[in-house]
Amino acid sequence: MRLTAQEVYDKLVNEDGILQLEGQIKFYLGDVNIIVKQRDVVGNIMQEWLQGWLDKRGIEYAPSENTQMPPDFFLNPDDKTKNLLEVKAFNRNRGPGFDIADFRMYEEEIINKPYMLNVDYLIFGYDMNDDGVVTIKDVWLKKVWEITRRMEDWPINLQIKDNVVHKIRPGIWYAEDTARTDYTVFESLEDFISAIEEAVFQNPKTHNNAGTWKAAFLRSYKQETGIDLSIPRWSEIKDKYDLKSVRKLEKAKSDLAKATDQYEKIKERIQLYHQKLHVEQEKNNVGKVGKIQDDIEKQKKNAEKAKEKINKAQAKIDELEG
Amino acid sequence: MRLTAQEVYDKLVNEDGILQLEGQIKFYLGDVNIIVKQRDVVGNIMQEWLQGWLDKRGIEYAPSENTQMPPDFFLNPDDKTKNLLEVKAFNRNRGPGFDIADFRMYEEEIINKPYMLNVDYLIFGYDMNDDGVVTIKDVWLKKVWEITRRMEDWPINLQIKDNVVHKIRPGIWYAEDTARTDYTVFESLEDFISAIEEAVFQNPKTHNNAGTWKAAFLRSYKQETGIDLSIPRWSEIKDKYDLKSVRKLEKAKSDLAKATDQYEKIKERIQLYHQKLHVEQEKNNVGKVGKIQDDIEKQKKNAEKAKEKINKAQAKIDELEG
Repeated sequence: MRLTAQEVYDKLVNEDGILQLEGQIKFYLGDVNIIVKQRDVVGNIMQEWLQGWLDKRGIEYAPSENTQMPPDFFLNPDDKTKNLLEVKAFNRNRGPGFDIADFRMYEEEIINKPYMLNVDYLIFGYDMNDDGVVTIKDVWLKKVWEITRRMEDWPINLQIKDNVVHKIRPGIWYAEDTARTDYTVFESLEDFISAIEEAVFQNPKTHNNAGTWKAAFLRSYKQETGIDLSIPRWSEIKDKYDLKSVRKLEKAKSDLAKATDQYEKIKERIQLYHQKLHVEQEKNNVGKVGKIQDDIEKQKKNAEKAKEKINKAQAKIDELEG
Repeated sequence: MRLTAQEVYDKLVNEDGILQLEGQIKFYLGDVNIIVKQRDVVGNIMQEWLQGWLDKRGIEYAPSENTQMPPDFFLNPDDKTKNLLEVKAFNRNRGPGFDIADFRMYEEEIINKPYMLNVDYLIFGYDMNDDGVVTIKDVWLKKVWEITRRMEDWPINLQIKDNVVHKIRPGIWYAEDTARTDYTVFESLEDFISAIEEAVFQNPKTHNNAGTWKAAFLRSYKQETGIDLSIPRWSEIKDKYDLKSVRKLEKAKSDLAKATDQYEKIKERIQLYHQKLHVEQEKNNVGKVGKIQDDIEKQKKNAEKAKEKINKAQAKIDELEG
């Protein structure tokens, strides 16, 4: 039986009800066996479990030819450019801890084999409770750009050791609580390619290929798909993925509104004081006149401070929106 | 049933034949199960397996009260100062990768509870083959000083991160091939204590306790055991644990022997040349006389070089033996 990645997903979730199953890991030695309560182990064995499941269900596949690179399974053994399936798993109570691929191998691979961009990522979010009972909390089927993101200093989230670029790492695509993530995953293949190209340029080890990387990729992609991709410049899109910028802008706008409100109130107050001053001057009440004049001076200083806040917030907004 | 650590060892090895058993780790989810082929997992589960085994055999124990510190099992639940058992496991195809204890907790613990020095370490050396079959290659029952050693810059093998002392780490006690280890494990409790005391002094975080550490330990040890321990100074014992020094000394002695032999041969040769020179001078054979004189000059230079080697080797020996 041959299935697409989507059909594999549907069968797992809808027919086999994987989200309702309870699993466990057991260690046997002699006549003693114990339940293994090591959460990180599950992340490393779901791919083998899926292989066992494909076998048991009689679903055809050819296994991976290079364990370093996607995919884990060719769901169409006769055409290894279509229906490619990569399996990932992570502890759902933590963030995704898996690697996508080695950056240099990946940026070369997608020029040589643009169909690699179409790999389906079948991702399991698992849980292990204190008794060692394993459950699958979530299953996703995603494209690579739907699970990757930028980082602060690089256009793609990279594992960097001693200043050397290693693996492409995932973002968080399921965040209910966006306040906890600083960068959103990419919105499109084009934006993902833009980020990869910028990273090829930025990485000293690939910098010399950057001049022709985009042209080579676009030519290869068109040859394979017939499609002329239009890749945006990274500088034009990078800010929309930075929730920190978005949040900073929101904060600056809120600061501006607050400071403006404050400024208006102080101005009203000063006007009111002037009226009172007028009344007391008419009465020739020297003591009160002096006190009100002091109050007016104080409020004028407050107005200056509020004006400064307004200018500062406006400058921040101009900077962030510019 | 109550057993000593030695009886536990004997039952495991002789009665239950643990060295002949074949184990495996399996993951179950739904109607699919797979063999888990992750070697490092075994190291983390042998302690739980032993607990299962103690339960199954009806061997009494009280479990660990602090998982950070030895022991894992109190084999006499009525007296938690005797018959303490700590379980360790490591991949026999690699070196021991487990921790002994946090250094600071340990140096304090053995003052407060000197009986901790008497903990029995039950150590499993396991193997997992490519099919995931787990076998136990070796089981040892050891005292702490029989599985610890010095290192280059510290009297005890320590895990040091960012210049901060963390865990005490094991040595290799089973080395058939001593050429691969630079330091041997300690020969006695006394030498181990000497090393701990020196490390207390050397570690900036414990340095201020070093002045009274030994006195406090000896007092506490005597109070508990009635024994006056005699602790050697670290400077007096450290070299015997350094196989590198031992090997350097052997090399220097061998260099000395070789150079001396060479020097003697050159001197004989020079004597021979002088005899030949005498013969040719008698014959008035000017050509040959000149040639032999050149040869003698050459051999004198060689003799000087050999003499230099002798002096160098002797200096090295004096330095290493001094």
